[in-house]
Amino acid sequence: MTDRAGPRATPTPPTSAAVARHAGVSRATVSYVLNGQAAGRVGERTQARVRAAAEELGYVPHAAARSLRAGRGRLVLLAAPADAVEAFGPLFTGFLAGFQTALHRLGYTGVLHGAPASSPMAAARAWAELRPAAVLNLYGPPLDAPAVELLHRAGTAAVLVLGPSAPPGAHTLLLDQREAGRRAGEHLLARGRRRIGVVRPAEPGPADCAELRLAGVRAAAAAHPDARVRPLDLARTEESAAGLAAAWPELGLDAVFGYNDEYAMLLMRALQDAGHTIGADGPDRLAVVGADDLLLARLLRPRLTSVHAEITPPEQIAGLVADLLLDPAAPPAIHRLGSFHVTPRASG
Amino acid sequence: MTDRAGPRATPTPPTSAAVARHAGVSRATVSYVLNGQAAGRVGERTQARVRAAAEELGYVPHAAARSLRAGRGRLVLLAAPADAVEAFGPLFTGFLAGFQTALHRLGYTGVLHGAPASSPMAAARAWAELRPAAVLNLYGPPLDAPAVELLHRAGTAAVLVLGPSAPPGAHTLLLDQREAGRRAGEHLLARGRRRIGVVRPAEPGPADCAELRLAGVRAAAAAHPDARVRPLDLARTEESAAGLAAAWPELGLDAVFGYNDEYAMLLMRALQDAGHTIGADGPDRLAVVGADDLLLARLLRPRLTSVHAEITPPEQIAGLVADLLLDPAAPPAIHRLGSFHVTPRASG
Repeated sequence: MTDRAGPRATPTPPTSAAVARHAGVSRATVSYVLNGQAAGRVGERTQARVRAAAEELGYVPHAAARSLRAGRGRLVLLAAPADAVEAFGPLFTGFLAGFQTALHRLGYTGVLHGAPASSPMAAARAWAELRPAAVLNLYGPPLDAPAVELLHRAGTAAVLVLGPSAPPGAHTLLLDQREAGRRAGEHLLARGRRRIGVVRPAEPGPADCAELRLAGVRAAAAAHPDARVRPLDLARTEESAAGLAAAWPELGLDAVFGYNDEYAMLLMRALQDAGHTIGADGPDRLAVVGADDLLLARLLRPRLTSVHAEITPPEQIAGLVADLLLDPAAPPAIHRLGSFHVTPRASG
Repeated sequence: MTDRAGPRATPTPPTSAAVARHAGVSRATVSYVLNGQAAGRVGERTQARVRAAAEELGYVPHAAARSLRAGRGRLVLLAAPADAVEAFGPLFTGFLAGFQTALHRLGYTGVLHGAPASSPMAAARAWAELRPAAVLNLYGPPLDAPAVELLHRAGTAAVLVLGPSAPPGAHTLLLDQREAGRRAGEHLLARGRRRIGVVRPAEPGPADCAELRLAGVRAAAAAHPDARVRPLDLARTEESAAGLAAAWPELGLDAVFGYNDEYAMLLMRALQDAGHTIGADGPDRLAVVGADDLLLARLLRPRLTSVHAEITPPEQIAGLVADLLLDPAAPPAIHRLGSFHVTPRASG
């Protein structure tokens, strides 16, 4: 190491050979003991001696070196930038936290990789450098078939992609955002609403998801010949909401699906400030529905009706990943990550 | 690899030796070209041939193998469980996203590691297995001096810990939560409030941070002999907030610092529902202050006064980490991650 000449050089990490020397045993013995394969091979006292030597020297196995030997690591890479993690709310972050804990129990390490990439291949290449056993592309850069192929060739046994569909060679984790829109639309239509505005956030993050939710509302409206669906462009600011509220009388709408609770609350408050009455019942009231079922959305009055996702328990998805790693030949399939339901409250 | 016998065995990742064979050059040549050290050593046409061969075979350098050779990787490990990332709000996740992008530009890969650990040593051991060049412990399990030492011995050049203080051998990233409380306290005291309740969340996540914010309010109150500070236990549910609001008349308070905007909004709404009037002015009004300056906190009426953090630009912290990696002998220091200010609105 070139920096050994420096004033406080980083010491060379202790190796398993050093542990073997310190304990007076062979490297194979150290390997058996520290990889949990000592039973029937190494006596109890020798095992204790090896563990003590490893402890004393501060020896830590090198995950990557182990993966170089074994041909596959224990790393599970979750592609999602930190701001997407936040944008998708407490339900999603709760899932992620539970998922990382469940992977940990199964002997895998889940890390969140949030770097941007200029292309599917650039993303796959950056991830492949870490030689992950599995990649879950949650909200990372999109993949295509050659990118999935590159990951497989680099030793990634399972590639899972969150979305309505995955590229060839990858499994699909299905959280059907169309369903979120469809549920909101069906709910409003069942209550007699026929002129439905659907918020389309101006921010780039939610764009794809917003298009799918809008398509879901349209699909629900298709069953009612007299129903009309109109996209409403809204930025995540009070000014944008006030502007939309000022233009409201021209729009002729009797309901809004606000994309999520945050945009719905923003618009609902602006509509109230402009003199509109929000509520589920009566033709003079405007119905407002959000999504995500945020705690804070219950603090405005009337309380916000919301679409919420019932997410598959994280232990189950961690188990699925572990199964796929044991059986990398399993043909790509669709695995549901959850489904959507409406929690009706007073707003719509 | 043992799974080559399976029906769709994962192929062996292409090696640099295979690239060399395919291009008809030596492994050293491949290494020069793919590590950007070809200038003056390898002709343009040979470089092109090596790149084409690498592209064709789908060769990706193994980050860990490279770090084994170089003695240090390009991985920067950020320890924070996903739910903490969410709990600390959009400001923090915005910082993290910007930080990961900035590291990427500097040639490093930032990954979020969220697995739990039973002890400081267990945490350090799990992180050390990935041989990170740097570790930033943001909201991960606490470290102590031996754990930092273990990381250094495993080749981690820089350990940075978010908090009021770091263990020996680690740098401190200071986001002084006492300051958040002090600012809230000073603001309320300057407006004549003297009996200040401070929300202490019942949830385990924010516990440490809440104690520091409470200490900050107490520190501000120490300058006013007639001021009293009282902790208020509150769970993140409407029921808990209603319970606290029902007990309010016995508490004799004229102001609340709600820990953050979410708890403040929860309590403010419950107090309003119980008939209390919230506001900055007048002895008959109860002042409420939150923290984080959430957009949604401006939608309740009166609009919530809030303490907000002004975070150091992520590019600057990424630059700091890169500098520390170039100079691992730099003595541990305190690096400010931001400071707190009050945005006064109508609530207090």
